[in-house]
Amino acid sequence: MANSKYEYVRAFEQPDVLLPNTWIVVRIDGRGFHGFTTKYKFKKPNDARALELMNAAAEGVMRELPDLVVAYGVSDEFSFVFHKDCTLFERRASKLTTTIVSTFSSYYVYLWPKYFPDTPLTPPLPSFDGRAVVYPSVRNLRDYMSWRQVDCHINNLYNTTFWALVQLGGMDAQAAEKELTGTLSADKNEILFSRFKINYNNEPEMFKKGSVIFRDSPLSHPLDDAGFPQPLSKTATEKDRKRRVKARIVVAHIDIIKDEFWAARPWILSGKAP
Amino acid sequence: MANSKYEYVRAFEQPDVLLPNTWIVVRIDGRGFHGFTTKYKFKKPNDARALELMNAAAEGVMRELPDLVVAYGVSDEFSFVFHKDCTLFERRASKLTTTIVSTFSSYYVYLWPKYFPDTPLTPPLPSFDGRAVVYPSVRNLRDYMSWRQVDCHINNLYNTTFWALVQLGGMDAQAAEKELTGTLSADKNEILFSRFKINYNNEPEMFKKGSVIFRDSPLSHPLDDAGFPQPLSKTATEKDRKRRVKARIVVAHIDIIKDEFWAARPWILSGKAP
Amino acid sequence: MANSKYEYVRAFEQPDVLLPNTWIVVRIDGRGFHGFTTKYKFKKPNDARALELMNAAAEGVMRELPDLVVAYGVSDEFSFVFHKDCTLFERRASKLTTTIVSTFSSYYVYLWPKYFPDTPLTPPLPSFDGRAVVYPSVRNLRDYMSWRQVDCHINNLYNTTFWALVQLGGMDAQAAEKELTGTLSADKNEILFSRFKINYNNEPEMFKKGSVIFRDSPLSHPLDDAGFPQPLSKTATEKDRKRRVKARIVVAHIDIIKDEFWAARPWILSGKAP
Amino acid sequence: MANSKYEYVRAFEQPDVLLPNTWIVVRIDGRGFHGFTTKYKFKKPNDARALELMNAAAEGVMRELPDLVVAYGVSDEFSFVFHKDCTLFERRASKLTTTIVSTFSSYYVYLWPKYFPDTPLTPPLPSFDGRAVVYPSVRNLRDYMSWRQVDCHINNLYNTTFWALVQLGGMDAQAAEKELTGTLSADKNEILFSRFKINYNNEPEMFKKGSVIFRDSPLSHPLDDAGFPQPLSKTATEKDRKRRVKARIVVAHIDIIKDEFWAARPWILSGKAP
Repeated sequence: MANSKYEYVRAFEQPDVLLPNTWIVVRIDGRGFHGFTTKYKFKKPNDARALELMNAAAEGVMRELPDLVVAYGVSDEFSFVFHKDCTLFERRASKLTTTIVSTFSSYYVYLWPKYFPDTPLTPPLPSFDGRAVVYPSVRNLRDYMSWRQVDCHINNLYNTTFWALVQLGGMDAQAAEKELTGTLSADKNEILFSRFKINYNNEPEMFKKGSVIFRDSPLSHPLDDAGFPQPLSKTATEKDRKRRVKARIVVAHIDIIKDEFWAARPWILSGKAP
Repeated sequence: MANSKYEYVRAFEQPDVLLPNTWIVVRIDGRGFHGFTTKYKFKKPNDARALELMNAAAEGVMRELPDLVVAYGVSDEFSFVFHKDCTLFERRASKLTTTIVSTFSSYYVYLWPKYFPDTPLTPPLPSFDGRAVVYPSVRNLRDYMSWRQVDCHINNLYNTTFWALVQLGGMDAQAAEKELTGTLSADKNEILFSRFKINYNNEPEMFKKGSVIFRDSPLSHPLDDAGFPQPLSKTATEKDRKRRVKARIVVAHIDIIKDEFWAARPWILSGKAP
Repeated sequence: MANSKYEYVRAFEQPDVLLPNTWIVVRIDGRGFHGFTTKYKFKKPNDARALELMNAAAEGVMRELPDLVVAYGVSDEFSFVFHKDCTLFERRASKLTTTIVSTFSSYYVYLWPKYFPDTPLTPPLPSFDGRAVVYPSVRNLRDYMSWRQVDCHINNLYNTTFWALVQLGGMDAQAAEKELTGTLSADKNEILFSRFKINYNNEPEMFKKGSVIFRDSPLSHPLDDAGFPQPLSKTATEKDRKRRVKARIVVAHIDIIKDEFWAARPWILSGKAP
Repeated sequence: MANSKYEYVRAFEQPDVLLPNTWIVVRIDGRGFHGFTTKYKFKKPNDARALELMNAAAEGVMRELPDLVVAYGVSDEFSFVFHKDCTLFERRASKLTTTIVSTFSSYYVYLWPKYFPDTPLTPPLPSFDGRAVVYPSVRNLRDYMSWRQVDCHINNLYNTTFWALVQLGGMDAQAAEKELTGTLSADKNEILFSRFKINYNNEPEMFKKGSVIFRDSPLSHPLDDAGFPQPLSKTATEKDRKRRVKARIVVAHIDIIKDEFWAARPWILSGKAP
């Protein structure tokens, strides 16, 4: 039996190849996580186990997709970055996006018992949505990353103060919200310190900075004058790919806005090296 | 600290709203399932436990997304259909696609131990990719569904014969493949029956027909002259939505190419009824 | 000299094929026509010569593109409709849109001296922009056409009253605008009649209804029971295509909202007949 | 009368904003120009009047759209480049593309009598199609421009030789085509010289190099160390915009593949200067 009679329906598929020579960011977000965190009694304003589970799932994604060069996570979201030269799945947006979301979801459910041993998952299950955005320049990409980390800071300072007012100050949610309306960063720091003896600077780095994940692959070959790894021969490139697969994956809670992070790890954006 | 300096990066997000008044099909596929089935020693040509796990995961998706009207699965793929009037996530392709893929993946991993109690999952974990396609007419949509079911038949007849030659006939893969080159359906039926006493018609329906999943929601209100449910008042619509959420989800292994299946269940494509 | 070194830039071209089985509407609009009408002293609220030039240019487009089934124009805009089965330029949006805009512009400039013999064009020249929109159903398409014709009516009634107040009533623009704020159709009819003895119903049909352009191709072959032309043999289809090319093109100023127009000309949307 | 009943059709319009921070190239091509050049007896292999008409039309486009930074034309095609920072029409692809195609067509028809005074246009009229492509980097953009100029060279050498064989050598088209099959550039130069005493290097530059069009706007303010114009104050930017509008538009037939052209005119790609 031939299938030709119905096969015309394939003509309705529309291509979604992402523009070449652009950085691809896939950001995923927990779906309905407000209810989810309530159901599983996540600690407020931050639940370290939940964040570590997010990081572990992201690590799983990084391991299964060696084309990813860096990822950044905060709260129930994670951003994964493919190099601008990436040709995985011919750069088809839906393939890239769904593969990351699917792999992340699988790890999240798979690893759940390790981080929440006493709280088994029950349906409805956790899920994530995602989307791809492309950025033409390193400047745009780094500004994207900075945007997420600034957001992390703003939200975490707000949430830390809000929950201090509620949990330590005995306010209800509405009163706390009202108290914070119009306040600046300095005001929130002041509230935390003067009323609750909390020095925001001493809060855990993971809460303040979020989590950046990358491969620990010091360059094994010379940099050119501009500080970028030199082009590699074909053999060297293949060898490097293998090393990238094997490279240790690092989770860090540090500033990615300033130049230091990127300057110290030229292989992340060069995409040429291990 | 304001976030305005970096927020410009949002302007790079490109909209992906699917055309209104079209049927949305999200098809997902197992990623690298050839290796996966080997790793977990799935039975060939069909592993009933694996198919039932697929169906159970799809059922989870149908339950969590009441906007879905029908789904059809075969092998490691599943197609989910949103009604042409669907407005979930404002019809954004990436939201719809990733949510389905994520929810499916979560259920697949979550339910794995129930179907494979003796074979724990280990990384790399199973994952799925997916894409959305829209169809303007019911004819196009039904032709899509028919396409998948014809594909199921063609592949299953081939695989059943191939594995009979290998498992029962003692051929190696290459010899079996060569034996089948150029054969028609009748030839394969003949090989199965004359050499191995297998009547293909007696094979399990799930293998031959795949699995269609829908809500069992007999109409509770009159049809119009053309056999379609009559328009409902606003109250009735809301009431119906609730019933749809509660409706029993049915997994069946039956023909969806002919008119019978659809004619007997007018609520599936009408989208107006429970 | 081979061109391969630079040819990679073709990979940046992104496909823009319009969804099959949908009606394609290309609407074009005069660019900066407010200033243009002032420069060439168009009569207000309507300049018959200018509208007839628009219609003549649209007729040129219809003649050069036999795939077009109908067009509708009002003021400085025109909407051109391709049949849902159209495969011209493989349904590439940019090809379809630019070809229509270009052909229209060429005719507009070419025919200008015929309609404005005493007012030669000078740079900057008239130009038009355009876009394609697809509609899945005949209902959607006809609602689109109705939308434009209702818009024609609303604007023309407003403009007729506004310019009567200015030209006949001696008001300045601001006063006229203020006078009309919040008025209903009945109010405007009343102003026209009681103050200026203008019966809006007697205004020219071209001003009130806009212009619909179609091929005058009475069916030469039997309709089926539903009133649609019967499917044609391949020879008959080719013969019909030729007749469509030769068919007289009609410009009419009539209602296209009600069923009558379409029912009397089944070949327009059937797309099967001459 | 309200228009709300039909206005829902606007929801079918799909956005087509081009990615920010990318160079926009709109390339237009003559539609069916093979027949067109025959109808109007264009000289082969190049008709100088026809090319000058193309250039004059392109100049009109450049003049009406000050956002354009450079254009390059060959044969019946022209590529127009918007700066990567361009925000004209909110970067909507269809607006940008149709406006260019429309303006070009208007000028082509308008200027026709100046270049072909003895050959009036008759329907069907000349028309052009067009499409937009975006390039993330200056490298990509320049490679695009180089691609077109290399194409110009390859085609012109071929055509010059082909028509020499036909017009001077008395061959028919098929014989000339066969003669040229498999020949390299050197072979064609040799044929031209040895058989027809034609030194290809002496052919007109417009034929060999095509036409590049840009604004003659020497920088009036200092360059930074990298040779780029320094950022301007807001007042200076506005002043510069005005100068860009007034700048003389230059048509040149020179190499745009090597660095010289661009290095000598830093304002073209900097987009910051007059």
